[in-house]
Amino acid sequence: MIDGHGDDTYSYAGIRLNFSSNVYNHFSHERLFAYLKERLSIVQHYPEPVPRSLETALAAQMGIGTDEVRVTNGATEAIYLTAWAMRRWRTAIVVPTFTEYADACRLHEHSVSFIRSLDDIPEGTEGVWLCNPNNPTGTVVSHEKLLKCIVGHSDTVFVIDASYAPFTLQPLLTLAEACGLPNVVMLHSMTKEYAIPGLRLGYLTACSKLIRWIEQGRMPWSVNSLAQEAGLWLTAHRDLYRLPLKELIQERLRVGHALEAMGICDTLPSDTHILLCCLRQGTAAELKDYLARQHGILIRDASNFEGLDSRFFRIAVQSSSENDELIEAIEKWKKTKG
Amino acid sequence: MIDGHGDDTYSYAGIRLNFSSNVYNHFSHERLFAYLKERLSIVQHYPEPVPRSLETALAAQMGIGTDEVRVTNGATEAIYLTAWAMRRWRTAIVVPTFTEYADACRLHEHSVSFIRSLDDIPEGTEGVWLCNPNNPTGTVVSHEKLLKCIVGHSDTVFVIDASYAPFTLQPLLTLAEACGLPNVVMLHSMTKEYAIPGLRLGYLTACSKLIRWIEQGRMPWSVNSLAQEAGLWLTAHRDLYRLPLKELIQERLRVGHALEAMGICDTLPSDTHILLCCLRQGTAAELKDYLARQHGILIRDASNFEGLDSRFFRIAVQSSSENDELIEAIEKWKKTKG
Repeated sequence: MIDGHGDDTYSYAGIRLNFSSNVYNHFSHERLFAYLKERLSIVQHYPEPVPRSLETALAAQMGIGTDEVRVTNGATEAIYLTAWAMRRWRTAIVVPTFTEYADACRLHEHSVSFIRSLDDIPEGTEGVWLCNPNNPTGTVVSHEKLLKCIVGHSDTVFVIDASYAPFTLQPLLTLAEACGLPNVVMLHSMTKEYAIPGLRLGYLTACSKLIRWIEQGRMPWSVNSLAQEAGLWLTAHRDLYRLPLKELIQERLRVGHALEAMGICDTLPSDTHILLCCLRQGTAAELKDYLARQHGILIRDASNFEGLDSRFFRIAVQSSSENDELIEAIEKWKKTKG
Repeated sequence: MIDGHGDDTYSYAGIRLNFSSNVYNHFSHERLFAYLKERLSIVQHYPEPVPRSLETALAAQMGIGTDEVRVTNGATEAIYLTAWAMRRWRTAIVVPTFTEYADACRLHEHSVSFIRSLDDIPEGTEGVWLCNPNNPTGTVVSHEKLLKCIVGHSDTVFVIDASYAPFTLQPLLTLAEACGLPNVVMLHSMTKEYAIPGLRLGYLTACSKLIRWIEQGRMPWSVNSLAQEAGLWLTAHRDLYRLPLKELIQERLRVGHALEAMGICDTLPSDTHILLCCLRQGTAAELKDYLARQHGILIRDASNFEGLDSRFFRIAVQSSSENDELIEAIEKWKKTKG
């Protein structure tokens, strides 16, 4: 999908507050930028054809083998590569979820079933796509349930998008555990972990056999020099990027309660900073447009997620005062509705 | 192909002179870098999902429609996208040439014929890949011959990689001409035109019908924020990036004559700054290793191009004094061979 994602700040003038992507906007990147400023001349050379240096650094950090990790041009390239490897398979996608899985499956001619839960995997399914924690709901499938499902479907490859793993306190299948399973591919987003969506950095992890199968589809130079360089620096400075996770989860609860109390919408359960809301009147498109034009606030119209409709919008909570501004602005919109 | 391309400076310590990629190394990027330094904070936002602003700027510059150009993550992504659109086709590749066409065709299950010239297109071929000017030979198929071939094969899609168009004085099929033909896709490399291989910027041009067919395979955010921003700046400052083309062609002739006179190799005809050489004794791998380790000079071992063998190496000429250093170093290698 090209149009209709979050963070479409380019569509409006004067956006001040951005709740529309699931990125946390309050890390300081000053040191990263200072480092990159001194390194711009690297663009005069080709990047490493595949980012082996960064893969080596990530593998060391995560305690897995270098043959168990492959860096990609955002998690998006990891999705498309995996979908290519599974071309023409019968796959199932647990929805509502990130739309790129379905798009990548369509591109590579999968026969796709949309299912509501892991309990509904159809007979004969060769691959399952699960975002865990999920986008746009923020919910987590429990470690126990997921592991049981994976082991119980040993002929099915599970593609688990763990992009939001840093945003939950719930126990998750760990990366090392997943590498030990023969039928799990995990996708990861440095975009989300480090809040650098413009650089396009992601990676996938799996047992080396699955990695070899997927990497046959790789093109050279897909990750540019500055992204590779930034990735190396970020991996070495991970401590500078610690999310205030408890506060974020607390804020998500608080904002959810405030919106519920206002009677404007129902909010769905979440285990992360992501809050999916269902309006009781009006449409998400209207609300989004009002907030952007009147208040310089961007939210995600979530109506284009498979299984949702025009009532749904999504926010990723930010700082407490920003969240207050959002609540107030939505309250003003409510008044316009009489 | 992941390993075995040029510009593999990461494989050796202390490379001083780089003849191994076809990039011209003597543009000054100071103003570009100064601009980017002030813009690094854009990595905190998603890039435009597809680079519409840059596509609009390029279309205006080239005098074609915005529906006739699509910016890609290097020309490489353009190759893979086009190969996806032609999946499972019978295609022919004019060799020796850039290896990525064959790799992309293999990935997308083409039935591929390798042919030596446009005169040899097999009956029933649905797509033809031609690099013009060609890599690694530097030769140009004449405008007249190419146009006649395209018109004569109206049911065949011609994918013409024009990455080296800025490096020849020979008349070529123009971009506007090609957009007017129903069966031509042209690939372009900002990497080569502006000498910024690390950024990954390319584009494809074609009539809008072919563009719509190919762009169905696009994933969002494949071109990162800094690449898009640099692309906009470069397009607006194209005058700062004028190749000393006559001098480069003159240098290519001079270097070719010097190597021939040395009796070390035969040189093949070229219409660009690219010089393909065939050693009379020893292998390109040996010569490459010697030059890198003893002289800090990198050349391209061209033995892995389809249709070539271990005797072939490729250089892209640079400044006159650098070319002199290369000639001298090769002369020294010759002496080691007795």
